[in-house]
Amino acid sequence: MKGGLSLEKPLHPVLTIRLFRDDRGYGPGIDTLLQGVKEYHSLRAAAQSMGMAYSKAWTTVRRCEEALGFPLLISAVGGRNGGGASLTPEAEALMDAYHRYCSALRQTADEMFQQEFKDFIG
Amino acid sequence: MKGGLSLEKPLHPVLTIRLFRDDRGYGPGIDTLLQGVKEYHSLRAAAQSMGMAYSKAWTTVRRCEEALGFPLLISAVGGRNGGGASLTPEAEALMDAYHRYCSALRQTADEMFQQEFKDFIG
Repeated sequence: MKGGLSLEKPLHPVLTIRLFRDDRGYGPGIDTLLQGVKEYHSLRAAAQSMGMAYSKAWTTVRRCEEALGFPLLISAVGGRNGGGASLTPEAEALMDAYHRYCSALRQTADEMFQQEFKDFIG
Repeated sequence: MKGGLSLEKPLHPVLTIRLFRDDRGYGPGIDTLLQGVKEYHSLRAAAQSMGMAYSKAWTTVRRCEEALGFPLLISAVGGRNGGGASLTPEAEALMDAYHRYCSALRQTADEMFQQEFKDFIG
């Protein structure tokens, strides 16, 4: 099936892209969580949509905020166990930059892959 | 501590780079394992040096070979539970290409990061 028609996806790069300060920071998990907050206006609902425990979501957000040095969420009345949540402007800006960065880097990775692995792609 | 002297490592990209055909293939785990085989001339010793069970190492190699479509190891007399092992020429070529690719991609990722995240690096 080499080189011809095939239902298999040929060899290709798969990147996991994280942004760390020291050994923690922003990555696919918190990114999906924040996208959920944007959609559902609630950290609890965002966590639930990923099958993540609310306590884990809370810890994930706090650790990421510590690593980044700015708040990610604005909580409405009700605090930890109630109310709604929305993203801070900094979180929105970071998310946008992360998505642009991931997209551009993946495209570059694909192009570099075609060059470096042309003998292996079949 | 923003922008000035700091013992903290500033925000930076951390990439995990895998090469998949369908949903499996080559990545950091099998790469470290093959480097161990190159060093110790034994899959068992390579697995041990990573704290990996021999059975897991064996499965990892077989699955990667299936995904790639070529053999990675040449086993000496003794077979699965004895003897030595060395890398096939294809495995050597793949390892070299993977290392070159990872190194070049990480450098590009750093450069793109400086552009995209200049407002966040402190």
